[in-house]
Amino acid sequence: MANPSILILAGDGIGPEVMAEVKKIIGWMGDKRGIHFDVSEDLVGGCAYDAHGTPLTDATMARAQAADAVLLGAVGGPKYDKLDFSVKPERGLLRLRKEMDLYSNLRPAQCFDALADFSSLKREVVAGLDIVIVRELTSGVYFGEPRGIFKEGNERVGINTQRYTESEIARVARSAFELARKRNNKVCSMEKANVMESGILWRDVVTEVHDREYPDVELSHMYADAGAMQLCRWPKQFDVIVTDNLFGDLLSDAAAMLTGSLGMLPSASLGAPMANGRPKALYEPVHGSAPDIAGQGKANPIACILSFAMALRYSFDLGEEATRVEKAVEKVLADGVRTADLMGPEGGSPVSTGQMGDAIISAL
Amino acid sequence: MANPSILILAGDGIGPEVMAEVKKIIGWMGDKRGIHFDVSEDLVGGCAYDAHGTPLTDATMARAQAADAVLLGAVGGPKYDKLDFSVKPERGLLRLRKEMDLYSNLRPAQCFDALADFSSLKREVVAGLDIVIVRELTSGVYFGEPRGIFKEGNERVGINTQRYTESEIARVARSAFELARKRNNKVCSMEKANVMESGILWRDVVTEVHDREYPDVELSHMYADAGAMQLCRWPKQFDVIVTDNLFGDLLSDAAAMLTGSLGMLPSASLGAPMANGRPKALYEPVHGSAPDIAGQGKANPIACILSFAMALRYSFDLGEEATRVEKAVEKVLADGVRTADLMGPEGGSPVSTGQMGDAIISAL
Ligand SMILES: CC(C)[C@H](C(=O)O)[C@@H](O)C(=O)O
Ligand SMILES: CC(C)[C@H](C(=O)O)[C@@H](O)C(=O)O
Repeated sequence: MANPSILILAGDGIGPEVMAEVKKIIGWMGDKRGIHFDVSEDLVGGCAYDAHGTPLTDATMARAQAADAVLLGAVGGPKYDKLDFSVKPERGLLRLRKEMDLYSNLRPAQCFDALADFSSLKREVVAGLDIVIVRELTSGVYFGEPRGIFKEGNERVGINTQRYTESEIARVARSAFELARKRNNKVCSMEKANVMESGILWRDVVTEVHDREYPDVELSHMYADAGAMQLCRWPKQFDVIVTDNLFGDLLSDAAAMLTGSLGMLPSASLGAPMANGRPKALYEPVHGSAPDIAGQGKANPIACILSFAMALRYSFDLGEEATRVEKAVEKVLADGVRTADLMGPEGGSPVSTGQMGDAIISAL
Repeated sequence: MANPSILILAGDGIGPEVMAEVKKIIGWMGDKRGIHFDVSEDLVGGCAYDAHGTPLTDATMARAQAADAVLLGAVGGPKYDKLDFSVKPERGLLRLRKEMDLYSNLRPAQCFDALADFSSLKREVVAGLDIVIVRELTSGVYFGEPRGIFKEGNERVGINTQRYTESEIARVARSAFELARKRNNKVCSMEKANVMESGILWRDVVTEVHDREYPDVELSHMYADAGAMQLCRWPKQFDVIVTDNLFGDLLSDAAAMLTGSLGMLPSASLGAPMANGRPKALYEPVHGSAPDIAGQGKANPIACILSFAMALRYSFDLGEEATRVEKAVEKVLADGVRTADLMGPEGGSPVSTGQMGDAIISAL
């Protein structure tokens, strides 16, 4: 049987550097555990624009569709800020999400014990925090039509459309309830049903799916503004949060920052099962392309490595191997190995991106 | 000359309780400082629905339009959760904002020194924090058409429209730049120009207004998700933040929570100048109607009292009197007077809503 295939799209900024460390882990899996992948690489984002005049070619799109899993680094950078909207680096990522129909974006916000003091929040508020935000990723205001900048009389008008169908809401709700069953069995759904009709539909459909299919899971609802507050106040009250594309964008970034472990957080974007039973899937760190430190060997590769661990778990049914990688990361942190982003005010000497990767390999 | 007029809309939940303390202050202003207002009262929100079947009657709307300033308590409560969207308590508030054209919502996020330990954030991250979020309040996805829940094939679709015209963006940008000139001269504008065309227009127009009319103010731009992160990480980097209606809703709530002083934070919603030169204006606390503690004399009246102080400053040109009220609040806090929401884990005995109001009067 052919090895499972992985398409690596390292992208821009620190993407290639952090992905280099993932490749080491993939190599180690083959050498030491006899687990082999067919790895290929391609371009996405600004680097694809530089090479082809588009942030994602049709050929790359086709390869992503065919891969068993896609690993993405990061896209974007100031160099591309002036590009036309239609060819911005982000469009490449959004096209992948949309055409692969990756509707369920899992964003764990987890506080690593060794790093609890790093948060801007008090230790007791974040220590041991382990929640997951399930963000709808293929619809809402990111993709709704009509959209654009139009001329009306003598002024411009900017328009975007928030749009959710019942089935789009139902499928991401299911994925949140399924996840909750494997965790603490609690889902909190967030929207603005007090001011948006799309939020009313969201709340209704989530409730219907719950009552019909997941009555055993504890469900609550919160307005997204109150949700932002509660995440800042006492995030441990949550287990799984399910929310739409735009709210998910803000809330998951806030949650990630709260953990103090931004350079540590992975994400999985999952779609429907393919013919081989595996879900369409793309894995990427929550952090961005960090152009200010790109190319200097300073970046923290852990978020990208943990994204690969999520791939092992969700795409390849290798939960034990995933845990092995996660434990290795914890060990290295407990041993005090730190990249520059993890240095506290007390100082110390940071390791490079490569040294962090090597330390994780040794711990494996 | 007639006294300036104030319309009080105490609303639901703790609204009436906290507003009672504002009335004491208004009384004190007349008795001790010879500053008199024509005060009248009316209904908004759930209580208006109970009385009239609508959260805001046309008659109340007309009185609000005619008043020199409107003071609002809070609207909403679980009792009204099942009401049809069109008559929900929130619709009363939204109608006031829209028809009075209160496009500029100033939400200070300030950390009171006596309360810095209350934040879930570390003291050094929030102590001395003093930023203002200027939220656009009359447009965007809150009001854009088309909107509603529609049938498409055999499923429902929820639709809302994010819509901003050039002039809507320009006027709120101006109000942010004006405010910054009276503060630390820095504005950060937040949108999602990387994924929304309305965000591109927002960024362009804010930049144009800046370059043409306020080149002396320092302007930066941030994506709203990064903004949510940075607010949680190091909020003191900001001075004035300007953003749209929906982002402003989430970001200002998060910022308010960070200060640890949620029950303390006022807001002013300002429109264009009326014939008498005063801006149309509505003042309200940032906190909600807190139905869980309503009617128990536990609520903290400070946010509502500080909202009245904002009215003194922005509607009545009584900056010195406003400062007097603010200083009285600070003194009372420094003296250790605390309502229940301000009790730390070390305990102590909280004062009632009325006692807090009286303490502020004594300090005046
Ligand atoms: C890069 C950008 C298009 C993207 C988004 O807005 O979804 C990012 O912020 C994210 O959260 O993955
Ligand atoms: C009550 C509600 C309609 C309102 C809003 O969403 O604007 C509130 O959350 C606010 O921030 O003033």
